[in-house]
Amino acid sequence: MDAAEFRRRGKEMVDLVADYIENIEKRQVYPDVQPGYLRALIPEEAPEEPEMYEDLVRDIERVIMPGVTHWHSPYFYAYFPTANSFPAMLADMLSGAIGCIGFSWAASPACTELETVMLDWLGKMLRLPEEFLAGTEGKGGGVIQGTASEATLVALLAARSRMIKLIQADFPDRPEADIVSKLVAYSSEQAHSSVERAGLIGGVRMRKIPTDDKFAVRGEALRRVLKEDKAAGLIPFYFCATLGTTPSCAFDCIAELGPICNSERIWMHIDAAYAGSAFICPEFRPLLNGVEFADSFNFNPHKWLLVNFDCSTMWVKSRSDIIGAFKMDPLYLKHEHQESGLVTDYRHWQIPLGRRFRSLKMWFVFRLYGVRGLQAYIRKHVKLAKEFESYVRSDQRFEISADVVLGLVCFRLKGSNELNETLLKKINAARRIHLVPCQLAGEFVLRFAVCARTTESRHVQEAWGHVSQLASEALKEVPH
Amino acid sequence: MDAAEFRRRGKEMVDLVADYIENIEKRQVYPDVQPGYLRALIPEEAPEEPEMYEDLVRDIERVIMPGVTHWHSPYFYAYFPTANSFPAMLADMLSGAIGCIGFSWAASPACTELETVMLDWLGKMLRLPEEFLAGTEGKGGGVIQGTASEATLVALLAARSRMIKLIQADFPDRPEADIVSKLVAYSSEQAHSSVERAGLIGGVRMRKIPTDDKFAVRGEALRRVLKEDKAAGLIPFYFCATLGTTPSCAFDCIAELGPICNSERIWMHIDAAYAGSAFICPEFRPLLNGVEFADSFNFNPHKWLLVNFDCSTMWVKSRSDIIGAFKMDPLYLKHEHQESGLVTDYRHWQIPLGRRFRSLKMWFVFRLYGVRGLQAYIRKHVKLAKEFESYVRSDQRFEISADVVLGLVCFRLKGSNELNETLLKKINAARRIHLVPCQLAGEFVLRFAVCARTTESRHVQEAWGHVSQLASEALKEVPH
Repeated sequence: MDAAEFRRRGKEMVDLVADYIENIEKRQVYPDVQPGYLRALIPEEAPEEPEMYEDLVRDIERVIMPGVTHWHSPYFYAYFPTANSFPAMLADMLSGAIGCIGFSWAASPACTELETVMLDWLGKMLRLPEEFLAGTEGKGGGVIQGTASEATLVALLAARSRMIKLIQADFPDRPEADIVSKLVAYSSEQAHSSVERAGLIGGVRMRKIPTDDKFAVRGEALRRVLKEDKAAGLIPFYFCATLGTTPSCAFDCIAELGPICNSERIWMHIDAAYAGSAFICPEFRPLLNGVEFADSFNFNPHKWLLVNFDCSTMWVKSRSDIIGAFKMDPLYLKHEHQESGLVTDYRHWQIPLGRRFRSLKMWFVFRLYGVRGLQAYIRKHVKLAKEFESYVRSDQRFEISADVVLGLVCFRLKGSNELNETLLKKINAARRIHLVPCQLAGEFVLRFAVCARTTESRHVQEAWGHVSQLASEALKEVPH
Repeated sequence: MDAAEFRRRGKEMVDLVADYIENIEKRQVYPDVQPGYLRALIPEEAPEEPEMYEDLVRDIERVIMPGVTHWHSPYFYAYFPTANSFPAMLADMLSGAIGCIGFSWAASPACTELETVMLDWLGKMLRLPEEFLAGTEGKGGGVIQGTASEATLVALLAARSRMIKLIQADFPDRPEADIVSKLVAYSSEQAHSSVERAGLIGGVRMRKIPTDDKFAVRGEALRRVLKEDKAAGLIPFYFCATLGTTPSCAFDCIAELGPICNSERIWMHIDAAYAGSAFICPEFRPLLNGVEFADSFNFNPHKWLLVNFDCSTMWVKSRSDIIGAFKMDPLYLKHEHQESGLVTDYRHWQIPLGRRFRSLKMWFVFRLYGVRGLQAYIRKHVKLAKEFESYVRSDQRFEISADVVLGLVCFRLKGSNELNETLLKKINAARRIHLVPCQLAGEFVLRFAVCARTTESRHVQEAWGHVSQLASEALKEVPH
C-alpha cells in the first residue's frame, strides 16, 4: 500500500470509525460468541500473496465485531470506563506516523519534552504540590506509564531500592538478600489485584490492611499492623494507598496515613487509577488532600479523562529515586546531552525500554476540550451515577452498598448473595446492558459504573428499568 | 469534537500523515534543538476553554517537528528499525475506535482470540515447533507483549517461580527467600541492557557469559560458568539467549546451549528482538535452529515486520508456567467462561493488566503484504546492508567489525577509538544521516542499521559518500 492508496483507505477508515461510534448503541453491548469462535472464521495460515483491501474490511464485520465487547456503548456499565475521544484518536494517528521510540531524550526530543510539560500541565490541573512538577529545575516530575499496574510496580521497586540503600548506609555489611527477605509492603484489602502482583514480581512480602465501614484504610489500622510487623523483625518499606478502589470507589485516608509513612520512612504511593481524573474539579479535589505526604502518585487519564489507552500518568517527588532503581547506560543509548539537568531519559522511569509518543494525545485532548470541557465531562458522569443511585434508593427492594462519590454505584437486592448472583446472571444473559460484580464485606454486590462518553440520562433510565424488571423475575425464582 | 467534525479532521489528518511520510526525506533526520527547547514554545498551563483546531495543527510544525528525530527517514541508520506501515496505521485507527481493554477473554473475546490466532499464523511463518502454537488443544501459545524488555522479564519471573516450585517439591521447608538468594540468571555479555534490568527487577543475581570471536555465547562458555556457580552453592535457573545482539547482531549458539539448559532445568528464553523477523525467510530460518530447546521465544514485529509499535510477540511451550507466576483472580475480573480450556485471559501472561487490541495490526499487515511481501521487505533491507558493507570493504581505510548477517553493518576506521569517535561526532553533527555507536571487544565501532521502509540503494550510496568524506576530514584532524 503506497501513500496514495493510504489517503483513500485512511479516509474510508475515518468514516468507518465515525460510523462505528455514532451507531454503537444499536449494537449488542456484550457478544454472544462462544470460546474459540474466531478461529473457525479465518484461514489457518497467513496468505502467501497480498489480499484485496475490500476483503479485509468486509471481515471486520464478519470476524471481529461479533466478538467485541463494546466498551464505548452507552449500555456498557462494567469495570471502569476506558477513554475514547476524537481528539485522542487524531493524536494517535499522528503518533503512529511519527513512530519514534522515545526511550531517551535524543531518540526524539519532542517526545520526551512534550511529555514532561504535559505532565506539568496535568499536575497543575490537579493542583499537585509543586514538588511533583518538573518545571525547569524541579527534582520531581511526571511520566506516562502504560498502566496503573506498572506505576504501582515501578514505585514498589523504587521503594525497595531506596530502603536497601537506607539500611546499608547504617549497616554496610548486611546483604541485600537478607534485607529483601524482611521487607514488607502494604495496601488496602480493597486494593486492586495488581498491587499484590507487584509484590509477587518484586519478590517481597505483601500485607493487606483491614478497612473501616467505608472500605477505607485508616491510620490506626496501619499503625497496628506496623507495630506487629516491626516487633516480628520485618522492615516496612512501601504503602500503596488507593483513592477510588475498584470494588466500591472507596478512599483510603491519606491525610492520616501519609504522616505515618513519612515518619517510618515508608514510601507512600497513591493509586487513583479511576478517581484521579475527578480531581481536576475543585469540588472533588479535597479527596486528594494528603497527597503532599506521598512519594508518588498515579492515575489513568486513559480511564476517565478522554485520553485513549494507554496513558497512565505518574508523578514522583524525587526522580533520582525512580532512576536509581533501574539505571543502565549502554553505549548505544548514550547521547551528547545525557548529563544535562534539563534532559530526561524516560527509559529509566519504566519497565519497558521502548515507548510511543503518547503525550500527543494529552496535548490534543487538553487543547480541544479545555479544562472546562473536561470538568463538564466528569460532572456529567457523576450526575448520571447519582441519578442511578436515586432510582435504586427509591426502590425498597434494593440497597446501596457503598457511598456514591463519583461515577460508580454499588447496589444489591436486599437478600442473599444467591439472589444477587441470579440477578446479575439475568442482566448479562439478556445482553442489553453489561455489568460486573464485586464483593463487599462478604456480600455479592453489583457495580454500575458510568463508562461511555455518550451515556445520557435516557440510557441510565433505560438501564434502571431493565434491572428493576429482571429483579422482579429473580425475586420470583430465588427463595428469599 | 463530534463525529461530523472528526470525519473532516480525520481526513485532513490522513493527508497530513501521508504528506509527512511521502516527504520525510526532505526533513533533517536528527533535530538541532537544545534540551528544554519545547517548554518555551507553549503555555505553562492547559487552556481553560477549548482552542481552535487550526491552531493546534499549526503547532505540529511549530512545536513538535523541530524536535523530532525522524525514525522513518531513509537517512536514519541508528539503533534498530522501528516498524511503520500504512496497513498497521489503518489497523491502529480501528483499534483506537473499538478501544476495548482486553485483559480477559470476556472483556472482548475478539481481542483475545485474534491475538491467539495471529500468534499461531506468525509462529507458522517462522516454522516454530508445534509445541509453541496454541491451536485448539495446545499447551503453549503466543501473546503480544509491549516490548522485548517485558518478555525477558516475564520469562525470568516465570522461570523464578518454576524453580522455586521445583526445589520446594524436594525440600518443602526451604524458605522462598533462601532459594531466591541463591538463584542465578545468565545472558551473553553482549545481551541488551534490559536483560540485566530484568534481573534487577526480579531481585536475582545475573551473570554475563563471555562470548567468542563472533560475539556469540558457546555451550562451552556456559558450561564453565555453571560449574563454578554450582560449586559455589548457587542455583542456575534462567538463561536469556540472544539471536541478533544489539551491538553487532551476533547469534548465541542455541543449538549448543539449549541441551545444556534442558538438562540443568534452566529456563532458556530466546530474545530475537530485531533478528526474529528475518526468520520468515527460509534462507535465514537456520539461524533459529535450536529453538526447539527453548522454553520461551520472543521477537519484535514492531521492529522489522512492518507492524507499528507496540507489538512484541512471545511464545511459550507451557502457558501454565507463565500463568503460574502471576495469577490473581478477583471477583470483578471473573467471567462465566473462565475455566474452559479454549479461553485465554492474557492478563496472566504479562506485567500490565490492561491491553489494547494490537493483533488487528498483525492481521492487517499479514493480509495486505502477504508472506511474500514481508519476505521481500526483509530481503531488501539485507541487500542494502550488504551493499553498504561492500563500500566499506572496498575502502582500505575502513574495516568491518562483525559479520554482516542481516541489516546491520558494524564498521570503523582502522585506527584509534578517538579517531572513530571523531568520525561519529562529525556524522551526527552534520545531521545528514544519523548513526549510533557500539563497543565491540574494547573498540569503538559505528553501527549502520538499515531502518526505514523507504530506504533505497541511492540513500545508502549517498550515506556512504558522506561517511567517506567525513572520514577524510577526521583522518586529517586526529593523529593516527
